[in-house]
Amino acid sequence: MTEPDPGVTEPNGAVTDPDAAAPAGERRRRSGGRAVGERSRLPQQRPWAQPRLRYRPTEVVSADELESIHEASLQVLDEIGMDFLDEEARDLLATAGARVEPGKERVRFDRDMVLERIKTAPSSFTLHARNPEHHLEIGGDWVAFGSVASAPNVSDLDGGRRVGNHADYQNLIRLCQMLNVVHFFAGYPVEPIDLHASIRHLDAVYDLLTLADKPIHAYSLGRGRITDAMEMARIARGIDDATFDREPSLFTVINSSSPLRLDTPMLHGILEMSARNQVIVMTPFTLAGAMAPVTLAGALAEQNAEALAGMVLTQVVRPGAPVVYGGFTSNVDMQSGAPAFGTPEYMRTAMVGGQLARRYGVPYRSSNVSAANAVDAQAAYESVFSLWGAIMGGVNLLMHGAGWMEGGLHAGYEKVIIDAELLQMVAAFLDPVVVDDDTLALDAMREVGPGGHFFGAEHTQSRFRTAFHKPMISDWRNYETWEEAGSPQAPAKANSIWKELLAAYEPPPIEPAVAEELQAFVARRKSEGGVPTDF
Amino acid sequence: MTEPDPGVTEPNGAVTDPDAAAPAGERRRRSGGRAVGERSRLPQQRPWAQPRLRYRPTEVVSADELESIHEASLQVLDEIGMDFLDEEARDLLATAGARVEPGKERVRFDRDMVLERIKTAPSSFTLHARNPEHHLEIGGDWVAFGSVASAPNVSDLDGGRRVGNHADYQNLIRLCQMLNVVHFFAGYPVEPIDLHASIRHLDAVYDLLTLADKPIHAYSLGRGRITDAMEMARIARGIDDATFDREPSLFTVINSSSPLRLDTPMLHGILEMSARNQVIVMTPFTLAGAMAPVTLAGALAEQNAEALAGMVLTQVVRPGAPVVYGGFTSNVDMQSGAPAFGTPEYMRTAMVGGQLARRYGVPYRSSNVSAANAVDAQAAYESVFSLWGAIMGGVNLLMHGAGWMEGGLHAGYEKVIIDAELLQMVAAFLDPVVVDDDTLALDAMREVGPGGHFFGAEHTQSRFRTAFHKPMISDWRNYETWEEAGSPQAPAKANSIWKELLAAYEPPPIEPAVAEELQAFVARRKSEGGVPTDF
Repeated sequence: MTEPDPGVTEPNGAVTDPDAAAPAGERRRRSGGRAVGERSRLPQQRPWAQPRLRYRPTEVVSADELESIHEASLQVLDEIGMDFLDEEARDLLATAGARVEPGKERVRFDRDMVLERIKTAPSSFTLHARNPEHHLEIGGDWVAFGSVASAPNVSDLDGGRRVGNHADYQNLIRLCQMLNVVHFFAGYPVEPIDLHASIRHLDAVYDLLTLADKPIHAYSLGRGRITDAMEMARIARGIDDATFDREPSLFTVINSSSPLRLDTPMLHGILEMSARNQVIVMTPFTLAGAMAPVTLAGALAEQNAEALAGMVLTQVVRPGAPVVYGGFTSNVDMQSGAPAFGTPEYMRTAMVGGQLARRYGVPYRSSNVSAANAVDAQAAYESVFSLWGAIMGGVNLLMHGAGWMEGGLHAGYEKVIIDAELLQMVAAFLDPVVVDDDTLALDAMREVGPGGHFFGAEHTQSRFRTAFHKPMISDWRNYETWEEAGSPQAPAKANSIWKELLAAYEPPPIEPAVAEELQAFVARRKSEGGVPTDF
Repeated sequence: MTEPDPGVTEPNGAVTDPDAAAPAGERRRRSGGRAVGERSRLPQQRPWAQPRLRYRPTEVVSADELESIHEASLQVLDEIGMDFLDEEARDLLATAGARVEPGKERVRFDRDMVLERIKTAPSSFTLHARNPEHHLEIGGDWVAFGSVASAPNVSDLDGGRRVGNHADYQNLIRLCQMLNVVHFFAGYPVEPIDLHASIRHLDAVYDLLTLADKPIHAYSLGRGRITDAMEMARIARGIDDATFDREPSLFTVINSSSPLRLDTPMLHGILEMSARNQVIVMTPFTLAGAMAPVTLAGALAEQNAEALAGMVLTQVVRPGAPVVYGGFTSNVDMQSGAPAFGTPEYMRTAMVGGQLARRYGVPYRSSNVSAANAVDAQAAYESVFSLWGAIMGGVNLLMHGAGWMEGGLHAGYEKVIIDAELLQMVAAFLDPVVVDDDTLALDAMREVGPGGHFFGAEHTQSRFRTAFHKPMISDWRNYETWEEAGSPQAPAKANSIWKELLAAYEPPPIEPAVAEELQAFVARRKSEGGVPTDF
């Protein structure tokens, strides 16, 4: 009962053991982590690891129905077509066999061209991080969980809801860096509005690459920003251009302007990123009843048409460039037009999205979403329902895994922690149930016998410290003890935890030469004026 | 846009249509319901209907691993055996081939006897309600959701937590009767402590049968109580003894006293109920690390041994008697010994339990559980995780569907409503995604085209009122509007809803002669002193 628990570590990998009192020097240290010299109050976490999808994904529609959605999408692309708001993209597609009329934005695709072109998209790839221990496998049965991204506002219990700013931006990066179950940054956790738009991407990407060491996303907001981000990701990894072009080290989400349109900044994102073998996550944002048909099958057919068109462009730009199929079909509240998330419609379309991605043999992106304004029961149930849709839908890349609220309009500090709890529970759910002579425990049952108790059995004593998932948030105290403690609810506990994590935060190590090169790059690009902001 | 919405009804079946203003006389009425003569503020609900499991259940363990658990269970029953604390039960089992030493409580079972005996258990059956429209199919791909049951305490936001009592007992029955998604009563929603134990069952079952008209459960607390409950269920249905013996009209949960023991009142429940073809839900309560091995495979092997032993007894008493395989394996907090629910361990054992039930070809029981003390994010995420385990585990009979908190130690009014929201969302998740020419919406996409908006399309306008699940609780208003409304969180909204439902409650109709016969039975049994309370 005094052996250290090898499976449970605190942030950055130092072993937390509430019972043992090993000297600081004996505490183990993982590379990329930091030693903790004294007893820490930090919550126990699962160690850094990517879960694997062990269970057969749920098939919401039959194989025939899936083919009907697929065929409808091809018909949309062939007959209606899609608007591409960039001439270079249209020219590339025309050269590759798409039908484009001179001077028109509409692009139409023969079905065979679509099917032929997407064949070169890889089924899986490695997304590289600055810290090699944080490289991620994207595809197959691997899952990676991302941070919240792209929220214009931020909120915590103490300060309430406020406009996104650089200080909160940095703190949310630090917080997600400390959470082992957050595997990558899905974008800016909150928009740092107080950084001027012409140079915001430089400071923001610099923060992502220095305050943390996990894989990152950059926004497709024109050529200048995305090429700056690629250069910074290359510098941060300390690799040359050729290596960067071989090793995906950055990803960008491409949202179509549904229905059936891809705008210029997004197209430039595909053109620049795919050319250098970086990762496109092609995600139509198809809200049924608004930007897509009110029927789920129709919304999915539209999603699929837009996703296929984007995938085709990536492969035209560079056959073999990594591309992820993104599903983000939800519904609106038909009374108010407000988007809804974590709904039964969302769950099913998330799962059908996964069926489509598997049909095309590419990795699948889904999200952990909620429309709730407060960190209440609604926030939790919408998130778990969306995780149910994602996980049983076969998600490989989970965007907005920790902290997304209010339909994406704010990032919540407490929601980051509660979501990290949910993600840890999902990861534990994906742990195998080991069935062998040892775990079947016949000897223990013989020893205890009818009417006995297992706690004292050797079989229990030698295993109990690592037997079960240990929660950060869940309060299992009896009612009286809990009431004496002030009847704390989940958000209050989450509030304490994010503060403890931020207080314990230390930046991950970085080579001084790399840091200097990054700083020099940022300084130079700022002196050049950053990027034009008139897009 | 003015047609009434056929798919959405308010409690008891009156159509709720926020836009239309049809005269009261035109409002439709379902049998068993009541007409609502004026505009109601009651929440919209899905109509009464049993969902069907449309998706392939999740297989957490392989077929080989499942066989290993099965074989370990048979070995337990053969070698260790199980204590049966009732002589009549032991004698019956001995006659049927089990090995019993005279004067000993231990019963051991040859594996072939177990496998042979359970073959007669039916794969599905109808559980009859007083109101024929509320009969339930138990088994196959049918799901039925039950109320909270057996809580010793009760809680609401206004009155806080208090000991169970008759007034709250009756109100919780009324509330669950009003909720279409609560299909049956899983027991006493809260224990009416203020009714004397000798006659409590008479008043309590009378209330269940008169304040509501859905299928009910009665407790196996000795022969007297369960036979009284059977007679009352028979009277309430207005059927004779022979019909009652053909038609399951009552169910009882049998919990083994794990590990490996069945006590006298529970055994009398099996003997009396199975003899009359009534429903046994055989549910070992196997908390890993306490009453069962700390390893999940071992806890499941023990659960399965106990479940099989109970199933054997039902079939020895009456071949063909309905019996449900109950899974309730969870884990304890190994620091405090407190039981934990809705955990990753719970989810996986719920799913393996379903695999075992399907292996034996009998219906499966699981539960909606939470250890939370407040109706906070924890309460919601533990409940949705347990629903994920249950639904993807292939549950047929969901106990504690609405209202269970604090590991079963209290029933919560607000939790009833929030759970009803979760159950409605699960039911909507189980609705098929219809894929046909109409739903694929190619015409709508042609009409709207790239860059357009679907709200104005005829395809949308003719479908939007019934297109999506409508929530009772989820608040999708924008932040500013929500804040102006006082920043209401989910429990506050649930508090309003249960009050509205209780205010609108009317008892379901009952034949006067049936009511009189029930009253006379209760009066006679009370005059006889009820049942002894020295068990």
